[in-house]
Amino acid sequence: MFDAADHAHMALALRLAERGAFTTSPNPRVGCVIARGGEILGSGWHQRAGGPHAEVFALREAGEAARGACAYVTLEPCAHHGRTPPCADALIAAGVARVVIAAEDPFPQVAGRGIGNLRAAGIQVDTGLQREAARELNRGFFSRIERGRPWLRLKLAQSLDGRTALHNGQSQWITGAAAREDVQRWRARSSALLTAAGTARADDPRLTVRLPAGVDFQPPLRVVLDARLDALAPGCHLLDGSVPTLVVHGEGAAVPAAYAAVECLPLPLEQGRIPLPRLLQELAARGVNEIQAEAGPALAGSLYAAGLVDELLLYVAPLLLGDAGLPLLRLPLLSDMAARWPLRLLEQRQLGEDWRLLLRPLPGAQAAP
Amino acid sequence: MFDAADHAHMALALRLAERGAFTTSPNPRVGCVIARGGEILGSGWHQRAGGPHAEVFALREAGEAARGACAYVTLEPCAHHGRTPPCADALIAAGVARVVIAAEDPFPQVAGRGIGNLRAAGIQVDTGLQREAARELNRGFFSRIERGRPWLRLKLAQSLDGRTALHNGQSQWITGAAAREDVQRWRARSSALLTAAGTARADDPRLTVRLPAGVDFQPPLRVVLDARLDALAPGCHLLDGSVPTLVVHGEGAAVPAAYAAVECLPLPLEQGRIPLPRLLQELAARGVNEIQAEAGPALAGSLYAAGLVDELLLYVAPLLLGDAGLPLLRLPLLSDMAARWPLRLLEQRQLGEDWRLLLRPLPGAQAAP
Repeated sequence: MFDAADHAHMALALRLAERGAFTTSPNPRVGCVIARGGEILGSGWHQRAGGPHAEVFALREAGEAARGACAYVTLEPCAHHGRTPPCADALIAAGVARVVIAAEDPFPQVAGRGIGNLRAAGIQVDTGLQREAARELNRGFFSRIERGRPWLRLKLAQSLDGRTALHNGQSQWITGAAAREDVQRWRARSSALLTAAGTARADDPRLTVRLPAGVDFQPPLRVVLDARLDALAPGCHLLDGSVPTLVVHGEGAAVPAAYAAVECLPLPLEQGRIPLPRLLQELAARGVNEIQAEAGPALAGSLYAAGLVDELLLYVAPLLLGDAGLPLLRLPLLSDMAARWPLRLLEQRQLGEDWRLLLRPLPGAQAAP
Repeated sequence: MFDAADHAHMALALRLAERGAFTTSPNPRVGCVIARGGEILGSGWHQRAGGPHAEVFALREAGEAARGACAYVTLEPCAHHGRTPPCADALIAAGVARVVIAAEDPFPQVAGRGIGNLRAAGIQVDTGLQREAARELNRGFFSRIERGRPWLRLKLAQSLDGRTALHNGQSQWITGAAAREDVQRWRARSSALLTAAGTARADDPRLTVRLPAGVDFQPPLRVVLDARLDALAPGCHLLDGSVPTLVVHGEGAAVPAAYAAVECLPLPLEQGRIPLPRLLQELAARGVNEIQAEAGPALAGSLYAAGLVDELLLYVAPLLLGDAGLPLLRLPLLSDMAARWPLRLLEQRQLGEDWRLLLRPLPGAQAAP
């Protein structure tokens, strides 16, 4: 069904889509290529929510040449009138003969409507080319739509012996400059950054994105868990209002004056804690696709043990801190090796002297606490 | 001074020397190639202590062709009458025109005598070709001769979060079969294996080498620290006398009947503990080149903090055990990140699902406790 040119054009469309990684949230990243055989006639990608979709840029560039050509799109073209007109209609109007789609639209109520409209107009539609890569690129978007919660990435940095800080909480810096710069790019592709107020009190983190001038990004929402609204120091970076910030707390807690520059969201506590599944539902409802948690061992362990961590972004520095250091994450007591928590390594990279590991929890093997 | 053929022949001599990795202790691993230009006339390696040296095998194979040829030796040929006649004399008698040597003999009293004798006989001698690799191959031998203590490799296996066992001591198995088989080869190249009786009581390890049939090796000496001669259970593997075993204890402790099959070595205790530098001196005096420590966090940490660990052989399994698990090693409390213990990665390898890291402590950065 798909030849080498199809594969090459879709691979290009995916690379173009990736260019929107820092800017499209809450929309998905989408790329489009218009081609005839090996010849590329137009290409484009979705740049930011509210702006034109990928197909529009590509069709504009192709112009009249699009007639009878083939369009490669990484996600099923939209069929509804949103902030822009439906892309399926634009493809029909341009007279393309064939549309190749990597991944189907995940919205249950509209899935397949784009494809249906194209086919009704006599256009050949082929789907599933490089579907896995297309879903991976938008794992946050698919997670939000299909599971009703954001894709959660847990970012941690540790010594070789699994310590994230000294016993006194000092953690600056375990990893080197290259690893710390790399974290900024993972932050930029996140719709939100999550931390606990207790951790924040120790470090006064900014939890913002610092990238070289000229790199465009949409500032992720800062989400801070502060059950009793008493853990953040007045004047700390997280309360400065410099970027959108959501402080999540227990119902009934009074909002102190120091919290005036941020939004406060009350949730009913469970056993004195903010219920994490409920929190993620709330964030999904706010359009959060990918969330990156940068937390201490308590919140990291709670997220992990609750099965809410979708991937672990782990920076490892070639040094030892010893057994008095803080652990990577607090997990329920294991009494049997069979109850361990296995992961699968997706990718490993050297960054300066450090290593970056991207891992995903494997289901099944661990016992629920 | 050295051309491409020289490099190729010495590289071959080093690979041949490596074949003695499991069998030459306490002697060094040595390889020899006799060649004329690109043509190899003879080759050999030292196979076991008491047997012929590498040069003898290579000269035998070359026969009369050795006259006027070049000999490549990974270690300076011996000039003394030991269990075999001096190899320098054999090279002179064979009439070689040139001898290329990777590393000089480290014995202070005899260093250079082999080279001197060769030169006195009119032979051209060039030294230092691939010296670093030759010293690396025999790092145990060089350590014993030059530093008066064995090269100490600390072997540990941990989860991604730096845990070597569950809180109840269970550690079978963190790593998979491939990693555990790999450990056997590192054991085989060690002159001795070191553990603490406390750890041994929990696991009843054999601390022997299990390799496929047909793989020749010299069983490493088992060395067990048991300060009061009371930690090993009667009937445990370490007391079975199946391989040479040395139990090191404090002076004045009475040797129980259960310890009859092993050698007991008393040492004066320091603060109730066996003094580790003294222990290593004793082992060097017994001809131990490389020692592999397989220990729990206490002994591992003591060795590390005392600066006695020369390399860390670390197996890491892609799984989490949580903060209740046993730590990798107990180190003195750090209150400042500048006092951390940095390491340099030499090699990384995938073994099944696990990773094997070979690291060496970097000097200088850590503060003495």
